Amino acid sequence: MPAPVDALRDALAPIEDLKSAAAVLSWDQETFMPDGAAEARAQQLSTLKTMAHERFVTDEIGALLDKAETAVEQGEATDMQADLVRVVRRDYDRARKLPSDLVSALSQAASRGQTAWKQARANDDFDHFAPHLEELVDLTIQKAEALGYENERYDALLDEYEPGLPTSAVVDTFADLREQLVPLVDAIAEQPAPDDAMLHGAFPVDKQKAFGEAVITDFGYDFDCGRQDISAHPFTTSFDVTDVRLTTRFDAQFLPSGLFSTLHEAGHGLYEQGVAPDLARTPLAEGASLGIHESQSRFYENVIGRSRPFWQHYYPALQDTFPDALRNVALDDFYRAINRSEPSLIRVEADEVTYNLHVMLRFELERALVQEDLAVQDLPAAWNDRMDTYLGITPDSDANGVLQDVHWSFGAIGYFPTYALGTLMSAQIANAMRKDLPDLDAQIAAGEFAPVLDWLRTHIHRYGRRLDAPDLLEQATGQSLQADAWLGAMRTKYGAIYPGL
Amino acid sequence: MPAPVDALRDALAPIEDLKSAAAVLSWDQETFMPDGAAEARAQQLSTLKTMAHERFVTDEIGALLDKAETAVEQGEATDMQADLVRVVRRDYDRARKLPSDLVSALSQAASRGQTAWKQARANDDFDHFAPHLEELVDLTIQKAEALGYENERYDALLDEYEPGLPTSAVVDTFADLREQLVPLVDAIAEQPAPDDAMLHGAFPVDKQKAFGEAVITDFGYDFDCGRQDISAHPFTTSFDVTDVRLTTRFDAQFLPSGLFSTLHEAGHGLYEQGVAPDLARTPLAEGASLGIHESQSRFYENVIGRSRPFWQHYYPALQDTFPDALRNVALDDFYRAINRSEPSLIRVEADEVTYNLHVMLRFELERALVQEDLAVQDLPAAWNDRMDTYLGITPDSDANGVLQDVHWSFGAIGYFPTYALGTLMSAQIANAMRKDLPDLDAQIAAGEFAPVLDWLRTHIHRYGRRLDAPDLLEQATGQSLQADAWLGAMRTKYGAIYPGL
Repeated sequence: MPAPVDALRDALAPIEDLKSAAAVLSWDQETFMPDGAAEARAQQLSTLKTMAHERFVTDEIGALLDKAETAVEQGEATDMQADLVRVVRRDYDRARKLPSDLVSALSQAASRGQTAWKQARANDDFDHFAPHLEELVDLTIQKAEALGYENERYDALLDEYEPGLPTSAVVDTFADLREQLVPLVDAIAEQPAPDDAMLHGAFPVDKQKAFGEAVITDFGYDFDCGRQDISAHPFTTSFDVTDVRLTTRFDAQFLPSGLFSTLHEAGHGLYEQGVAPDLARTPLAEGASLGIHESQSRFYENVIGRSRPFWQHYYPALQDTFPDALRNVALDDFYRAINRSEPSLIRVEADEVTYNLHVMLRFELERALVQEDLAVQDLPAAWNDRMDTYLGITPDSDANGVLQDVHWSFGAIGYFPTYALGTLMSAQIANAMRKDLPDLDAQIAAGEFAPVLDWLRTHIHRYGRRLDAPDLLEQATGQSLQADAWLGAMRTKYGAIYPGL
Repeated sequence: MPAPVDALRDALAPIEDLKSAAAVLSWDQETFMPDGAAEARAQQLSTLKTMAHERFVTDEIGALLDKAETAVEQGEATDMQADLVRVVRRDYDRARKLPSDLVSALSQAASRGQTAWKQARANDDFDHFAPHLEELVDLTIQKAEALGYENERYDALLDEYEPGLPTSAVVDTFADLREQLVPLVDAIAEQPAPDDAMLHGAFPVDKQKAFGEAVITDFGYDFDCGRQDISAHPFTTSFDVTDVRLTTRFDAQFLPSGLFSTLHEAGHGLYEQGVAPDLARTPLAEGASLGIHESQSRFYENVIGRSRPFWQHYYPALQDTFPDALRNVALDDFYRAINRSEPSLIRVEADEVTYNLHVMLRFELERALVQEDLAVQDLPAAWNDRMDTYLGITPDSDANGVLQDVHWSFGAIGYFPTYALGTLMSAQIANAMRKDLPDLDAQIAAGEFAPVLDWLRTHIHRYGRRLDAPDLLEQATGQSLQADAWLGAMRTKYGAIYPGL
């Protein structure tokens, strides 16, 4: 007769296996699956996910959970077991609160929504997408009501991606951010933009891939427990701490695309590879939140990968890899080129400075939608207004404006802010790390990345989902979420790049 | 309320999805999975297979099956539905007959057996493997007794791989085969062997792969519903009729290895791609038996791929692909080289003529083991005796003798004969096809393979498991299993290659 928490863990393990199997099938779908298999694969994935859900929301799991909670209350559990029970209780209550007909309606609306969105974007026809988005917003409101919330509907939605963080914290942080970032972006826009012509040219994909893989191996990414493949949209997925896979895409004509995507995904991958092995086959064996996850990818992509010390170390090797393009380009010119900042229309192509404004705009609009303060039909105009206010530019079309992102088309409302939260947190984490590693820049310039990874493993990675993101951030950095660290980092960095700033 | 057979089919579909998911995970394990993930993957596969089994052997499926059988009896089902119910009844009864502790004991003994076998083969130490094989034979006997049989234990085991074929049919067919094949092999061994030096050399793998894929595309293998990858041991796997994948291995120094492996696996793949789409997500959506499956692979590998008309068409392209090796080699010399036959120790490297003797030997020995007519300790001596009798050679070690194959180490007893049955059936099928396609050789020599595939689709592929192998063979060829067709084909072919024969 296993102890109560062990009994719960044993019952959850096969459910985790089902989720891992679904993740393998999804990975295969995006990398190697032949086109003709799409329909069969959708069916297989639906079966695996439905089975995982059905096995989880049973009364049997509820009874095991009750007993495990009693054991925790009576001090008969380790700290890790107590964390497991707490997180599973939250997941379980959340899963049980959603009526299965609502889950099914959302899933079907999402499927139709994605199809309609693809057509709408291709034809620059927002009206074609609008009724689908209306339905999705309506169902999302029903979802928020079913889940319940303390202050506003958006709390219930954000909680899915960023557990423990109230909407009010995002609102306050973004207010600080907006106040200082809009003028900074304006000021940068007035400066002469660095020449980045050398980043466009002939960059053979196999060489890009080999260079990127050498760098992330130096970072500590373990190819014996992972691999990198090509997909249309880069992502990282974990089937176990011993099997964490990256995907990326390369542009044979533009170097930064594949290079920084590889470093970005490696940040996600290093996080998943660093989860403590004793959390295997439990719901704790993944990242704490999307925001924390993004903090790790942005850390490796931007804090390290777009830093001058990093290129002090790697630029000679990059020149050797692409001699025709870079032989006659000085390190400083290359460094300025990869950090060129200017207002642009498309979020996924935005630079480090302007990116957060794209995210803020989406957060404000989607929050207004679920609060019923904004109607779907008024969304394109609201989008264009805000683009002008924040970035000083206006989309030439809805396809390059309100229709550019996939997220809303499958009902992912509450997801967008995590992109910016991760970026802000990456700077807070970097500041905390620098206190413990005063020689950080010199170490990076020497290609020594073990101290960085050790620090992240100790303060972030190993916990998995044991701590909620706000607690993890507080413990790692001594601070709650704030915009100042990142704004300070941007001012310092761009002050050096643009002497006139 | 769905009709009874539809209700059964609906209940089986998610089980098929679980099996397909397991097949994806197995494929990934053999192709792309990082080494570090082995343990987690074993766990995930075990969960998927256990769930599929548990969902199948429920009383609920039994009740649905009873109702479906009543519907069939009352004429309320299509022919396809009647076939489905018949096959599912057999699978269900078989699965329910096996006590779960026996299944578990076999699974664990197989896992230990494979580990021990690997060590034993590496160290040429049969005694290390013997106790494991004894346990596996003992458990296999228990399995046969639990399943029940008409005449002998081996019937119950063969039935897993070749449903509907009694052991006595194999015994009789192999007796005919032995009587005529042993003298043929002896006679060939007395002839001067063709020179095959041109097959050894430098054959870049990417060129081998491209050549093979062009050929199997000509055969009709659909890369929009399939792909080919590299694995240590070639295999074909199907996740759906729209997703049938081949794997192969290439030897950069020896051309035939990868080339004929690709054609062989394409035969399996064409079969799976040709199953009627209306059998999707049912237990009928796979090959009728291992023997029929092997008949398709041997057909494309040997009947077509090692024929003179085939190389009349492809040899110029092969010469263009590997000019250094083949520029100065005449078609006839190449053709004789790829058909060189001589007694050898290793089954998987054996040529078309001698191969069946390797299989016969294994069948006779494993049948004697489960009949308790042969003790495991006497197996190496029995192996070596029979090698001498059938092939006139004696293994230099147990590693190159009784320890060479993996099958027994995981309890696969009853599997070996299907290799030879497939070869024999491929010749019977070729003869039947030639009656309908009198210009077959000319079509092959012109690179026209559509008539071949159409014939196989019509007479074999589309049925999936709807017909048992003996019925399918009888319907397609007008004959039951026999050795004469293949022996006749070998005599004709080798009579032309060895004029002195």
